[in-house]
Amino acid sequence: MILKGNFIWAPELGRLEVRERAFLVAEGERIVGIYDRLPPEYAGRPVTDWGEAVIIPGFNDLHIHAPQLINRGIGYDARLLDWLDTYTFPVEARYRDMEFARAVWKAFLNRLWAAGTLRFSAFATIHKQAAWELMELTERSGLRGLVGKVNMDRNAPEALREDTGASLADTEELICRSRAELKRVGFILTPRFVPSTTEKLMEGLGLLGEKYDLPVQSHLAENPSEVDWVHQLHPDIPTYTQVYETYGLLRRDKTIMAHAIYLSPEEKDLLCRRGVMLAHCPLSNINLSSGVMPLRGALEEGLRCCVASDVAGGHTAAMNRSVAAAVGLSKLNWLSRPEERSLSLWEAFYLATRGSGSFFGRVGCFEPGFDFDALVLVPDPTDSLLERTPAERLEQFLYDGDDRQIAARYCGGALVEQPFPS
Amino acid sequence: MILKGNFIWAPELGRLEVRERAFLVAEGERIVGIYDRLPPEYAGRPVTDWGEAVIIPGFNDLHIHAPQLINRGIGYDARLLDWLDTYTFPVEARYRDMEFARAVWKAFLNRLWAAGTLRFSAFATIHKQAAWELMELTERSGLRGLVGKVNMDRNAPEALREDTGASLADTEELICRSRAELKRVGFILTPRFVPSTTEKLMEGLGLLGEKYDLPVQSHLAENPSEVDWVHQLHPDIPTYTQVYETYGLLRRDKTIMAHAIYLSPEEKDLLCRRGVMLAHCPLSNINLSSGVMPLRGALEEGLRCCVASDVAGGHTAAMNRSVAAAVGLSKLNWLSRPEERSLSLWEAFYLATRGSGSFFGRVGCFEPGFDFDALVLVPDPTDSLLERTPAERLEQFLYDGDDRQIAARYCGGALVEQPFPS
Repeated sequence: MILKGNFIWAPELGRLEVRERAFLVAEGERIVGIYDRLPPEYAGRPVTDWGEAVIIPGFNDLHIHAPQLINRGIGYDARLLDWLDTYTFPVEARYRDMEFARAVWKAFLNRLWAAGTLRFSAFATIHKQAAWELMELTERSGLRGLVGKVNMDRNAPEALREDTGASLADTEELICRSRAELKRVGFILTPRFVPSTTEKLMEGLGLLGEKYDLPVQSHLAENPSEVDWVHQLHPDIPTYTQVYETYGLLRRDKTIMAHAIYLSPEEKDLLCRRGVMLAHCPLSNINLSSGVMPLRGALEEGLRCCVASDVAGGHTAAMNRSVAAAVGLSKLNWLSRPEERSLSLWEAFYLATRGSGSFFGRVGCFEPGFDFDALVLVPDPTDSLLERTPAERLEQFLYDGDDRQIAARYCGGALVEQPFPS
Repeated sequence: MILKGNFIWAPELGRLEVRERAFLVAEGERIVGIYDRLPPEYAGRPVTDWGEAVIIPGFNDLHIHAPQLINRGIGYDARLLDWLDTYTFPVEARYRDMEFARAVWKAFLNRLWAAGTLRFSAFATIHKQAAWELMELTERSGLRGLVGKVNMDRNAPEALREDTGASLADTEELICRSRAELKRVGFILTPRFVPSTTEKLMEGLGLLGEKYDLPVQSHLAENPSEVDWVHQLHPDIPTYTQVYETYGLLRRDKTIMAHAIYLSPEEKDLLCRRGVMLAHCPLSNINLSSGVMPLRGALEEGLRCCVASDVAGGHTAAMNRSVAAAVGLSKLNWLSRPEERSLSLWEAFYLATRGSGSFFGRVGCFEPGFDFDALVLVPDPTDSLLERTPAERLEQFLYDGDDRQIAARYCGGALVEQPFPS
């Protein structure tokens, strides 16, 4: 496959590569290279010429709650713990109804596809059947990612409070079934967060993680009341982070922790040693008045970080808006803490493409050997009234573009069409 | 005209009216009333039944730079004064080319129409011809508002630095011509800001304001460097606000000042006495790292406030996104200043509809005697998978809706179609 266009990507934090009117060659799932002139061995092969379009890596969203897609925008005058009880849990209880679940999952995958999120790590609900359905629909969608059945066996409304043994058994069944039947979608262990999971459940999940060498996703230190609650629940363990560590849930280089706002230096050090990916969710942190993650500090201390949507704490699945919000939140932080340099747009772009893509391996860059994931962006006609560089057109897309400007999506070397047209 | 639907509006700060499956009757430009059952005198008249749609007042945007529409999203890693020099002024210089100006103005009016901004107060550029063209195109568009030719005769690049006498003469010509020829569009005096306007120019504009009883719009206390600069330029006048006052540019109940972040108590008191409308522009203040306007305090002190887009300091003309951003910024402010209660979504909605509409008179409410301006919102099909109240559907639109969900727009009692279809 050969594509021609203006390629832009961020290979590392703060560095942007722009290759105008270049050729990208991919074979199978992988990128062979990018060339200013097509090498002679490819002469005569068909070239898809995207003209003036800007081509970027796909977005990778490492923290999103699939069942909450339909809760976007609702109830944000509350804060985390009340919001969960009032808005989140009642909706999640409905996913025992498989017809309902299937309709939302299709809408969810269509929405991610539309917005250019080609890979993701999603929370489903506690329901085994609904989680399986999401995995299977994702496999069929052409998108890729990780899906976890949520585990909760305490501090949850009755309809969502699992029996510990059943929760573990359901989880193991999904692990085995997905390994046997799916190729593009993996299972990820998904304890909701410490307050919702007993010691016994966390211990069991840690053992499953070890047995099947699984990734893990959860929440960490999002809100001061939540942090206090964890300390009350686990008075013998010094920090929130160490609760996960105690039960084997900080799996090296395979763990995503969302938010990570209120951490001690010891916690950051442990997260760094375990190679945990911190998913910064600016829209959610703003909507739920949670706080400002000290992102610049985390990056400088060598922590792995990415930008994620956290729908429905975040109000949109469109990752370009989370990129812009990460920059904005960082500028506001700079106003009161001028020693913390704010994030540039290209740094935030890196965190939503290559930063998050690294969790899936060689994803998020247009360099040889990387998986070929890409979005083809066509400019809004209004913005073409002035001559613009490809990088300026990308700036405009990141701030004010939407799915109407994404003309094509490639994931793992293949063009992906809308998964579930109505 | 009779419409049926779910009507929602905010008649005052913090109060929301919801009338489900109600009938709105308008005669000519004005609303007669809203009724749960259609009064007998209207029996037999045609009713436009919008079914489950949510119908809200149109958005009114009191601070937007029309020439900068095509600069959205560009260069936000700079701050105000550098950004003006590097990004804003070079583009504004291009509007002596009338073909270019006309193309942007049409795109601008199409964009506002699409996003549901039915009334606005816009900065054009310094160019008399281009400003006239924007006024005339607005008159034809079916939208309503105020347009100002920008005045600048100091501290501007040569291409944008006017001769003081010519600037005043051009302004007066536009005032007279618009009074003679236009009905739905008015002229608004538009000194760019104190650093760009000499004493002589400000004095002349103040006299024109008096002579023709005109409204005024400008910028005030957006950025600390700008405030310092004003103090250097006018060492004999104690405050930025008093510079405008000195030259007759705080016209009672007819003045819009954008930003108003860095104000002394004396300045707030003066602005309150003059009934000046403060246009809070959250997206711009974030993008240009300008600061956080103390909005709650301003509201409690009785200052008139509204939410505005400030394109292209703001990156989108879609006012629903400025509403959500105002709430978000206010929550972030609450995190560090817990004594300042954050803005609720309905308060921000008020500020973008009735709050801003009050500048135009009886605009922004569905109450008898008000101008009939409205947007008809149809839900995203995904969000209809769950039963939602009309208010919840409006929450979802404000946070994550776009122009695809606006099925119809009424301004001044008339249905408005896309002004300039391509």
